[in-house]
Amino acid sequence: MANSPSGETVIQRVDRVLGAFTSRTRRLTAAQVAKRADLPPSTAHRLCAELARCGWLDREGDAFVVGTRLWELSTRSAPESSLASVATPFMQDVQAALGHHIHLGRVEGGEVLFLQRLSERGAREISSAVAERLPLHVSAVGLVLLAWMDEAERASYLAELAASGTHPPQGSVENLEAVLQTARSAGHVVQTGNIEHDRTAIAVPVKGAQGSVVAALGAVLDRTAGPVDPGATVQVLRAASHGIERTLREETARERVAG
Amino acid sequence: MANSPSGETVIQRVDRVLGAFTSRTRRLTAAQVAKRADLPPSTAHRLCAELARCGWLDREGDAFVVGTRLWELSTRSAPESSLASVATPFMQDVQAALGHHIHLGRVEGGEVLFLQRLSERGAREISSAVAERLPLHVSAVGLVLLAWMDEAERASYLAELAASGTHPPQGSVENLEAVLQTARSAGHVVQTGNIEHDRTAIAVPVKGAQGSVVAALGAVLDRTAGPVDPGATVQVLRAASHGIERTLREETARERVAG
Repeated sequence: MANSPSGETVIQRVDRVLGAFTSRTRRLTAAQVAKRADLPPSTAHRLCAELARCGWLDREGDAFVVGTRLWELSTRSAPESSLASVATPFMQDVQAALGHHIHLGRVEGGEVLFLQRLSERGAREISSAVAERLPLHVSAVGLVLLAWMDEAERASYLAELAASGTHPPQGSVENLEAVLQTARSAGHVVQTGNIEHDRTAIAVPVKGAQGSVVAALGAVLDRTAGPVDPGATVQVLRAASHGIERTLREETARERVAG
Repeated sequence: MANSPSGETVIQRVDRVLGAFTSRTRRLTAAQVAKRADLPPSTAHRLCAELARCGWLDREGDAFVVGTRLWELSTRSAPESSLASVATPFMQDVQAALGHHIHLGRVEGGEVLFLQRLSERGAREISSAVAERLPLHVSAVGLVLLAWMDEAERASYLAELAASGTHPPQGSVENLEAVLQTARSAGHVVQTGNIEHDRTAIAVPVKGAQGSVVAALGAVLDRTAGPVDPGATVQVLRAASHGIERTLREETARERVAG
């Protein structure tokens, strides 16, 4: 299977095939893959069949789902899994204390990429599923990441946002900058109603072994389920964030000794 | 990039490159990839560079790690993530009640593949990390999966085990068969010291919407940390397993309505 007439490599076309599958479209026929990936049907059929032979897709009736082999290959060794697995026990403590949704995200391509989420049973769904993304200026986790971003990168993000004509939930880019300034001096973000009017989202930064912010830890609290105490929530999140930071430093020290 | 002289497709060679990365070897140079994947160094260098261009590998200094793009592609849509995300809130309840390690696995290629794990902070490490595998007859989760497996498949697994001359932790294949028989009548497995002498592992089956066993939910309890009450543990695991089963049935019913 050589490069396509368009000069795309096999890997690029496979990337488009796999990109057609999402959390809402987990099961697709080869014809649906062709449409969503914008590939000729014959190419999509051939690639799906070959991916199924390697276990990168699995057959489910006349359709395909992302394969166990691909999930294993990426999950067991990805740095995302490693950060999530350090954070999860601390997130469980937070979840036990606060209930609702607790999630962890980091910057990826100018967005928040969610690495882990723990939710109370029966909690109303939110948009930050694991491996999903949201714009930085929308969620509390994203605002923390934006507030602690390198200054030049932040300026360029805000300039692009202003140029795009998007109205951020804070009302204007100036208000958004004020929110980021407050976040940096307070050490956390509290936002109500950015995504849904009856939710309050609170987030704090998580620093890596080198001292820079590598992730943000947040709670999304449902105000219809009871009163929200932002001060107490920040304290609980901070305690967990410190625990994650300490573990990351210990792991780095151990790796240094082992390496 | 056409098929190799050996007739391997690009996808097969990429699979070998990605397979070189594990939870213990998350960071590899192209030369190390070549050695572990048994590829010519020039092929490994070229493939690593191309994978890095698509975000399937990320560069870290002079080495590579599994890329964020690949993790996202597989995590957001894999059926593994979907089952784990249904089970996680119930696993959190179990973890809060029992402490220690709580994990969920299913059969994959005659082994247990672990889909999710929640661990108490500071708990001694165990071998069932997410996306890692263990032989079916070793862990309690595996024994549950083996006990509820289709009879012909189980017979062939046991025949292979006997033929391989492996001594199962139960002492003999006959004893193992007796353990599986007991598991089926009791509805759970309790095993002490199969992997480590001072741990007790307890597991129960989880049925899918169609009524067949799709996974097993287990606890790995550290006997050095305090007394273990198998009866109470089984009850807690069963309650969670019923909750997972109910949610899977509800989801299937919802999908049927939506579809």
